[in-house]
Amino acid sequence: MDIDKHKNFSEWFNTIVADAELADLRYNVKGFVVFRPWSVKSMKLMYAAYEAELEKHGHSPALFPALIPESNFKTEGEHVEGFTPQVFWVEQAGGNKLEERLALRPTSETAMYQMYSIWIQGLADLPVKIYQSCQVWRYETKATKPFFRGREFYWIEAHNAFATEKEAIAQVTEDMEMAQEVLTRQLGIPFIFFQRPEWDKFPGAVHTFAADTLMPDGKVLQLPSTHLLGQNFAKGFNVTFQNEKGERAYVWQTCYGPAISRIYGALFSIHGDNKGLVLPFHFAPVQFVIVPIIGKNADENAIMAYANEIYSLVQSTGARVKLDDSKSTPGFKYNYWEMRGVPIRMEVGGKEAAERTVTLARRDNGKKEKFAIADLQKATCDIRDALNGELARKAADFFNSRQSSATTKEELASLLEKGFIVRVPYCSMEKSGKPCADEIKAKTTGDVRGIKYPHEVMPHDEKCVICGKAAMHFAYVARQY
Amino acid sequence: MDIDKHKNFSEWFNTIVADAELADLRYNVKGFVVFRPWSVKSMKLMYAAYEAELEKHGHSPALFPALIPESNFKTEGEHVEGFTPQVFWVEQAGGNKLEERLALRPTSETAMYQMYSIWIQGLADLPVKIYQSCQVWRYETKATKPFFRGREFYWIEAHNAFATEKEAIAQVTEDMEMAQEVLTRQLGIPFIFFQRPEWDKFPGAVHTFAADTLMPDGKVLQLPSTHLLGQNFAKGFNVTFQNEKGERAYVWQTCYGPAISRIYGALFSIHGDNKGLVLPFHFAPVQFVIVPIIGKNADENAIMAYANEIYSLVQSTGARVKLDDSKSTPGFKYNYWEMRGVPIRMEVGGKEAAERTVTLARRDNGKKEKFAIADLQKATCDIRDALNGELARKAADFFNSRQSSATTKEELASLLEKGFIVRVPYCSMEKSGKPCADEIKAKTTGDVRGIKYPHEVMPHDEKCVICGKAAMHFAYVARQY
Repeated sequence: MDIDKHKNFSEWFNTIVADAELADLRYNVKGFVVFRPWSVKSMKLMYAAYEAELEKHGHSPALFPALIPESNFKTEGEHVEGFTPQVFWVEQAGGNKLEERLALRPTSETAMYQMYSIWIQGLADLPVKIYQSCQVWRYETKATKPFFRGREFYWIEAHNAFATEKEAIAQVTEDMEMAQEVLTRQLGIPFIFFQRPEWDKFPGAVHTFAADTLMPDGKVLQLPSTHLLGQNFAKGFNVTFQNEKGERAYVWQTCYGPAISRIYGALFSIHGDNKGLVLPFHFAPVQFVIVPIIGKNADENAIMAYANEIYSLVQSTGARVKLDDSKSTPGFKYNYWEMRGVPIRMEVGGKEAAERTVTLARRDNGKKEKFAIADLQKATCDIRDALNGELARKAADFFNSRQSSATTKEELASLLEKGFIVRVPYCSMEKSGKPCADEIKAKTTGDVRGIKYPHEVMPHDEKCVICGKAAMHFAYVARQY
Repeated sequence: MDIDKHKNFSEWFNTIVADAELADLRYNVKGFVVFRPWSVKSMKLMYAAYEAELEKHGHSPALFPALIPESNFKTEGEHVEGFTPQVFWVEQAGGNKLEERLALRPTSETAMYQMYSIWIQGLADLPVKIYQSCQVWRYETKATKPFFRGREFYWIEAHNAFATEKEAIAQVTEDMEMAQEVLTRQLGIPFIFFQRPEWDKFPGAVHTFAADTLMPDGKVLQLPSTHLLGQNFAKGFNVTFQNEKGERAYVWQTCYGPAISRIYGALFSIHGDNKGLVLPFHFAPVQFVIVPIIGKNADENAIMAYANEIYSLVQSTGARVKLDDSKSTPGFKYNYWEMRGVPIRMEVGGKEAAERTVTLARRDNGKKEKFAIADLQKATCDIRDALNGELARKAADFFNSRQSSATTKEELASLLEKGFIVRVPYCSMEKSGKPCADEIKAKTTGDVRGIKYPHEVMPHDEKCVICGKAAMHFAYVARQY
């Protein structure tokens, strides 16, 4: 494809989505796309990794209905206000008008918590830590973009209930650690958790914490968010338990939402290059592709027999391997599998067959090296680890290189223009601080993403970069998707 | 619980769904239930097993939108006629009325095949073998029952396109073999594939083949079905390819639909007993439960240390193991985990700790035996295999014992009354044979399930059990869910 993703991210993105067959935008409902096998195979692996991490931390899977009665949906005031403009409504079934219209879930608090009020009676029933892997539907009015924002997206939502506020706060921290494990350690995606300003919280939450990563064009993309719900929903849905004093008490709740389809979008945007996808080894649908190279006067049968021997050898280790024995040229095959991000290519020609060697080519940096068949297992493990490490390192380098600070409006505007996440002294994260955010948005198209979590220490004498009043916080500003 | 499932299946079923916490029927939308963690954990394992089998046979996963424009939905005449009475419709989003109303997918032919018409251009694009794991929604008018029939259920749907009819027919056979592998070999569920009568086909199909299993009350339950679609949908959606002669030709299609939530219902109904669930080893959320037994004057610390040692040992083999160190009595714990179908219980008391042994109790037959710790791995493998084999054998025995033949209406009625699948000579599977089926239904509540596939040889001189005309087939009749 040969498009520079930093210079022309939008063209790069659209080309890779089409050419690597990740999604098809031609489905005839606005804002909806078809996710094609190559992206779905990686997303299934990502789902499995995140679910394993949740289960390791005591969460159990469940499946709640996708349809929510309007009366449930209206139980928590801020929640209904925040989500109503985005709801798809079912009003008819068969030839009948339904007695009550049903929301196609935009998120499942109002489906789940009425059941929690039945299930939770005493301390022995707590904590509840349940997740579901599902899709949700939101009638987005912002511009949609495959993987980043659609009217239907795939996520995991975890919903927890505790006897104490302290446990709920600890859950928020655990949610951040799980994001660190899956996104950073396994997928090589860097991010910062921000506590969002009061005016940008999840509707119904006491506090919202959300991970922002940075795209090649310098805009941030929100990844998993975790919300301290306090007792807001517990009061709406009457989720109570009998405490040690024998009194009914409201539970303390949290919810957490990693959007797998969006994380996949971040994954390929961050690691991809001008040849196409570059995927971490464990999340690649095909980890090894074997390309037989049949030169002039070569013994095709011997090479193919040897390629098949290598195939069996690699497959027996449990790896996902493909032997490309199609009629295309080796060059065509190189491009095809590079576009699709296969981490390691195995070239097998007459020389390799005679020597009983394999030439390994690494997707991320193109380096080639020849190994004896006896050394193959160790060599592929080494390359795998080096590739994974290098992807994470490069991603972190770019992310870190795009963070800076400003103390004047002009510096802020200039850094945002260059695609930075900018730290500024800021008056307040309460609603009183919103006019300054509005001014930033109007003048620079930047958004106030919130304050870092855990909170940074703030010197006494800083002034808000916009209004000049005493600064309560260092806020972070960036352009966003 | 102590309810005989053969004598009172309905009570047994409702009790187990509630007491083993499989599903909750108190969700406030009619026909919708919440699937709770204990069933979802097994269903996730079942999904993984079925998906692996599909992928082994060349299928790839994709994800298509859940919303289908009404105009797509109306493209295939029989299909729209068959499904329209069951469709939930979305007409509003946010505050807006949509330009075209959208069907919440009851099945995805009409979402997928318009994309196939884009993707398939030449022979090189064929075959297409794509599946998606998802839920579907049908406004059922029949009585709902958790897992067996609901207005939302979880399934896999595979949709295939081929250049030739021969390949499509071979796919139908492959679909049956995959059902054999997963349902019979892995889950121990016996079934027969019937080719359904013309009046009971999937709307839009040329032929429908469906697997029927038998419930303890003598009613059959339809499990996976596979449909030869011929070129019906290909013509509706203009799915064509350029054939070897350079002409545009319609593809030949099939689709396949194993409903995981229903197969789970069959699984526990078939294997369960009067103490609760009995689960095949590989599909149990917990495979081993360790119950410490602290007698009077016992050294609790020593027993708990030993129980923890056993826990670590079993966990290190990759098995799913639970150490129940709650405060309940051993008897309570036995009942609790027996209700939930844990295949092997490990009892660890003072004697076991002193001898370094473990007493293993097998869930299906209650047999107990003591093993030295050094023999534990082999013993558990043996018990696992014996338990899986015994479940499948007992299930097959029951299924086979409930099949018989009749040549008169009276015999047929009497056998149906006793809960048999009854073979009868039958006039015709074409529409002309429907009046005889209607008569059977009216008089016995039995349904004509179709003819066996592969087809049986039919003697010349048999007469239809109902109308007395020449019998074209042996048909199978049973009461159904």
